[in-house]
Formats: sequence, structure tokens, C-alpha cells
Amino acid sequence: MDVMEAIWQRTSYRGLYQDTPVPREDLETIMKAGLAAPSGCNKQTTSLIAVDDPELLRQLKAVIDSPVGHTAPAMILVLTERIIAYDDRTYYIHDYSAAIENMLLAIVGLGYQSCWVEGHITGEDRIGRQMADILGVPQDRDLICYLPVGVAAEPVKRVRKRPFEQRAWFNGFGGGER
Amino acid sequence: MDVMEAIWQRTSYRGLYQDTPVPREDLETIMKAGLAAPSGCNKQTTSLIAVDDPELLRQLKAVIDSPVGHTAPAMILVLTERIIAYDDRTYYIHDYSAAIENMLLAIVGLGYQSCWVEGHITGEDRIGRQMADILGVPQDRDLICYLPVGVAAEPVKRVRKRPFEQRAWFNGFGGGER
Repeated sequence: MDVMEAIWQRTSYRGLYQDTPVPREDLETIMKAGLAAPSGCNKQTTSLIAVDDPELLRQLKAVIDSPVGHTAPAMILVLTERIIAYDDRTYYIHDYSAAIENMLLAIVGLGYQSCWVEGHITGEDRIGRQMADILGVPQDRDLICYLPVGVAAEPVKRVRKRPFEQRAWFNGFGGGER
Repeated sequence: MDVMEAIWQRTSYRGLYQDTPVPREDLETIMKAGLAAPSGCNKQTTSLIAVDDPELLRQLKAVIDSPVGHTAPAMILVLTERIIAYDDRTYYIHDYSAAIENMLLAIVGLGYQSCWVEGHITGEDRIGRQMADILGVPQDRDLICYLPVGVAAEPVKRVRKRPFEQRAWFNGFGGGER
């Protein structure tokens, strides 16, 4: 799929998934896409776990307790290390956000759907840590996002966004010359 | 260009640029790609300014005072609004990082090079604010990144990254089963 087409088609899919399995090769390609993203000072703070084992998926979904991605045949979990890049500056949020966006585009490019689910698992009930414990993730890494992966079983809906003219301009804020 | 090819080819280019102008149509496509990225709770905290006016570029580059992108015939400036998404949670860093990654991929897809420059302009000397003032950006938005855009005049080098096996696994941290 053309890169621009993937960018236009990507959307947050919260519907049901078909039970068609996702081949390991595709999950590996998606994770490689994530790791190909840039990272601040090349610190590579992001790491990934793909889960396609049915029993493990069942355990994770029981902890997640959300309809988003509940029927997906696979998931990719995003881990981060909150390390300093230089001085007191950290870029781990930037790093994993770019990695997630790459993965979302690769997922669409391969014919699947997904959704960036972060807030639900990083709240005070620490669902992300419960998921991390199931997967043997050490305490120095945080599990901050899950991406369901699978073929959509329902129509894909799109969110409405503000028009281009209200968010982008040439040669000055608000349309120096547009 | 295929989405996977764009993902593999994207790298941080810090070399010289050819003086070939970047057509407005391409700058608009790149900005649309950025605005197509997801945002937390669809708050759309990111906005963009493309600069191709030679005098304005000269003023901005004088303030930036860095060799990265100094010869680029165009630039895209990334603005953010640090607003709450819900409770006390903000996602503006996530939002602009995903938007920047989309733009970097679109830039590569269109045959240009770029580099995500953020740390240099968001330090204590507040270069980003000086740039924002030149462009008439109000105080409630921060200019946090510039992306040079143009055709590379030098060979594109790639950064070395840790191998896949050290950063990604199946069904458990560190290779539950790999």
C-alpha cells in the first residue's frame, strides 16, 4: 500500500475482529516497523511484545477488561524505559509515540485494523503493570499501550477532524498569506 | 512509495540540501499527513506552519543557528497546545510525535529528506519562542519542532540500532518462546 494511502486510511478501530489468525511474519513486520522509528538521541527506549498465544491473550484480556480489541486474534504490547536522553531531558514518550504510529501504518498496510489504547491501562489501577507481570516484564520497563491486531469484522468508522485551514498555514500563524 | 519502504528509508538527515524548491502542493500534502495522525481524545492539539518564503526562512535560520537543515529550501514548524485531554492527563506530546512521524514518512515518500529537530529549540534559551514570535504564534501555543524539507545534496547515512532480538519478542518479555 502507498504510504499516503496508509496515512489517510489509518483510524482508531474499536469494533469486532474476525478470528482469522495474524501470521507471525506479519506481526514481526509490524514490530520491525515500530523499531524503525526515530528515538531521541537514538536511545531506543521502546521495546515490544507480540502476543498470539490464545491462553496468554485470554489472561491479558481478562485484566484489560475493555471491549476495545477484545476479539482481536493478536496484540502488540508497547514497553518503555523512562531514561534520560541528556541533561534532565527525556524523550521516551516521543519515542514510543513515533513507534506506535509506524506500527499503526504498517498494520493498515497489511490489511489489518488496530487502535492505540493507552489511557485505559496507564491509570491509577495500573492495568499496564498487571499485564506486564503476566508477560514477565521487569520493573524498569512500563507497559503503556496495547495495539490489537486483526481483520475488521465491522465497518471502519472515521473520526471527524477540524478542517485543514484551521490547523495549518503557510508563512505565518493563522495564514500569514493563505 | 510503499508504506513499508517509507518506514525503512526514513532516517534523520543532517546533511546539505539542494536548492530545488519544494512545490506548495507537496508541503500541503506533508502537512495533511501530519494532521491525519491520531490524537488523544481527538483533541487535535497539533498545528503546523510551512515556510518557503526566502526572507522568512532567513530570519528563522538566523535564530535557529544550527547546521541541521540550514540549507533546506522549506521548513515545517510544529506547534502544540498543552491542553488537558481528561482528568489531569495530557497527550500533546503523543499527538505531535505521531503527527511528526507521519510527516517524516510523507517527506520520504515524496522524495525529500528531513530531520526531527526538537531538543535544540526547546531548551532554556527558548529558540522555539523566538521562532514563534517571528511567525506571529500566540502565547498559548508552543513551537516545539522544525522539520527541514528538501532534496538531499549528500549521501544519506543511517544510524545503527540494536538488533530486533534485543527489543522485540513473542508471548513474553525477553523471548517467552523466541
